[in-house]
Amino acid sequence: MKIKRIQGGVTAPQGFMASGVSADIKGIGTDKKDVAMIYTDTLAVCSGVYTKNKYAAAPVKWCKRVTHIGTARGVVINSGNANACTGMQGFKNAQRMAALAGLALDRRAENFFVCSTGVIGVNLPKDPLTKGVKAAAAELKADLEHGHDAALAIMTTDTFSKEIAVEFEIQGKKVTMGGMAKGSGMIHPNMATLLGFITCDAAIQREALTVALKQAADKSFNMITIDGDTSTNDSLIILCNGEAGHEPIESGSADYKLFSQALEKVCISLAKMLAKDGEGATKLLEVEVKNARNARAAMKIAKSIAGSSLVKSAFFGEDANWGRIICAVGYSGADFNPARVGLVLESAAGSEEVMAEGAGLVFNEENAAKILAEKEIRIIVDMHDGAFKAVAWGCDLTYDYVKINGSYRT
Amino acid sequence: MKIKRIQGGVTAPQGFMASGVSADIKGIGTDKKDVAMIYTDTLAVCSGVYTKNKYAAAPVKWCKRVTHIGTARGVVINSGNANACTGMQGFKNAQRMAALAGLALDRRAENFFVCSTGVIGVNLPKDPLTKGVKAAAAELKADLEHGHDAALAIMTTDTFSKEIAVEFEIQGKKVTMGGMAKGSGMIHPNMATLLGFITCDAAIQREALTVALKQAADKSFNMITIDGDTSTNDSLIILCNGEAGHEPIESGSADYKLFSQALEKVCISLAKMLAKDGEGATKLLEVEVKNARNARAAMKIAKSIAGSSLVKSAFFGEDANWGRIICAVGYSGADFNPARVGLVLESAAGSEEVMAEGAGLVFNEENAAKILAEKEIRIIVDMHDGAFKAVAWGCDLTYDYVKINGSYRT
Repeated sequence: MKIKRIQGGVTAPQGFMASGVSADIKGIGTDKKDVAMIYTDTLAVCSGVYTKNKYAAAPVKWCKRVTHIGTARGVVINSGNANACTGMQGFKNAQRMAALAGLALDRRAENFFVCSTGVIGVNLPKDPLTKGVKAAAAELKADLEHGHDAALAIMTTDTFSKEIAVEFEIQGKKVTMGGMAKGSGMIHPNMATLLGFITCDAAIQREALTVALKQAADKSFNMITIDGDTSTNDSLIILCNGEAGHEPIESGSADYKLFSQALEKVCISLAKMLAKDGEGATKLLEVEVKNARNARAAMKIAKSIAGSSLVKSAFFGEDANWGRIICAVGYSGADFNPARVGLVLESAAGSEEVMAEGAGLVFNEENAAKILAEKEIRIIVDMHDGAFKAVAWGCDLTYDYVKINGSYRT
Repeated sequence: MKIKRIQGGVTAPQGFMASGVSADIKGIGTDKKDVAMIYTDTLAVCSGVYTKNKYAAAPVKWCKRVTHIGTARGVVINSGNANACTGMQGFKNAQRMAALAGLALDRRAENFFVCSTGVIGVNLPKDPLTKGVKAAAAELKADLEHGHDAALAIMTTDTFSKEIAVEFEIQGKKVTMGGMAKGSGMIHPNMATLLGFITCDAAIQREALTVALKQAADKSFNMITIDGDTSTNDSLIILCNGEAGHEPIESGSADYKLFSQALEKVCISLAKMLAKDGEGATKLLEVEVKNARNARAAMKIAKSIAGSSLVKSAFFGEDANWGRIICAVGYSGADFNPARVGLVLESAAGSEEVMAEGAGLVFNEENAAKILAEKEIRIIVDMHDGAFKAVAWGCDLTYDYVKINGSYRT
């Protein structure tokens, strides 16, 4: 295996420090971590992918500026308040977060990305924020625990922190890549705020990095969301500080290919953790659409199934209601031949073919029930219509989703 | 008022009979009505609007044939089984339902529309169906009670039957229009089967009727669904038998305008009943988008809000989380100026402006709580961007939605 999974998160690569502190933004006296920082003293090549929502939050606007510059040293993040729909004051507050980080670390404000997640439409509290960013800068350390603190501090309704790190070799040098993310709200994953941060000690040309990040996002985070439907704050940011000591990776090279594979692995792992931790979720659903006419059709169909509330509810009830799956295939908007489609349900407990050539089969209900009782279930749709494939992830829809979202703000 | 609401449903217009009987399709011994029939001895001009799902069910294929002929005498409907994804046997069964109706009433099979709603992918049971269609034909009567029986027999997870009738005047003659519908599954209303049936004793040219039905559907049933996302069985059918005795209504005439208004009123009333009776719903949400740049933008934004699971959950929790509403505006895909948008929440308890010029206002939480405690709530979005308007309807997302859909098939 060229790409090896190792322990840790954003602090795994050389030269990266992180921290997570409590600044009372999530509520006074709760003691919950709500300000995180990632920092590399060596200037990093950077890139970012952002929400397409027309109400892109103030921090997203700031991040786009930093992305345009193309180099950065860190990210400062708060949870508990999204700083979205907050007008001019919101942008000033985002800028202020970057300036506070710069001040604390003796760097320019433009060296820092800024991300926020939480309630929309409320201005960030000034004093807690000042205190929080200062404390986060003072706490920065390169060990795995501090990476974990940062992963905890970005959580909102997440029930577990999401971290990953991998190791591979470029030009004989060991390269490490780490990542953390937060998500939840997985019924329409598109509407939850998704934040992802990736650190790497590889050296890479900026344009190559931008292309690699976009492609990895399309196969991972964008496969747990529906096209164009993104929250006000969704952001995925990568920093590569080059401390591994090899020559910068160029587009199209074998090194680039390996780097891209590692990045895809990191992004898919984080995306699956997000799907698994969907609000109230009890099951991870993996939807594989194969032999589709084209890549776009495969993607549309996979997302349509993973995003269907009726499908999600049926899996919560462990009901092999394959009619709902095929209904979601039918309204996906993709072009295909309905009379060719086959459908298999699969999990650690086995697999069962429930549909072939566009019509239902008499299947073993007992076996299907065993399959659906598992925590991770695969829905495999064979279009028999071409050679393209896509995989999407989702979760079941449960009572707890409604509970969590019925009273999120209060 | 030119268009007067009166008692009754599909049997209100002259010459229309109906029935609803139990044929054990919903389960042996349950005694639930599951076969309905509508019939007019006088041949009626007809039209229909159908699902765009690639897996259009067998009965939909049959109905399109009848629609193409342009005249019909009735509709035979079963609940408990959708006859969808049932291949060639499914089409034969749909054809057989029409043939059985024709046989019982001494008419051609092609005189009858056929609709089914219920579980996908299971073949219709032969004997119950034969028994049911015969019994429904034998039971046909023109009184309001029999219209009500039909409305009951088409229900699946609906908690109440949906009927309406109105009266207006064409060329000095009294014209009556009646309707019934079934729906439920309102979280993604698009995925529930929606069946609507409208009867009228007006005389109208076929093409004029087709245009009027399409336009009414776009302002009503299609505003509780999301573009292109329809179940395998969605059908809206109208029959006009001309028994009112006036000259046929022509396109563009004043009579046509009045007829269209009546049809729109009937369709909107039924659509609102469907939204109100969404699976597990406790609240009806009416979303009005005004002063939009164009009609398409208004429609997209209204539907985006009414279809958002996060918005729906927030209203169940009576939480004035307007950030979720504006987030749904932002990802609607419509073109608009984010900095101009205003938002008002309104109900019988009053109204509260929560957002202006694209940013949140400090609002009276107490008043907002009173507004949201009501059963019918209006969300008014002012785009300040043009002169176009659209209204969409939805319901809240509740624990009971998940309960109903977690075990629908079993």
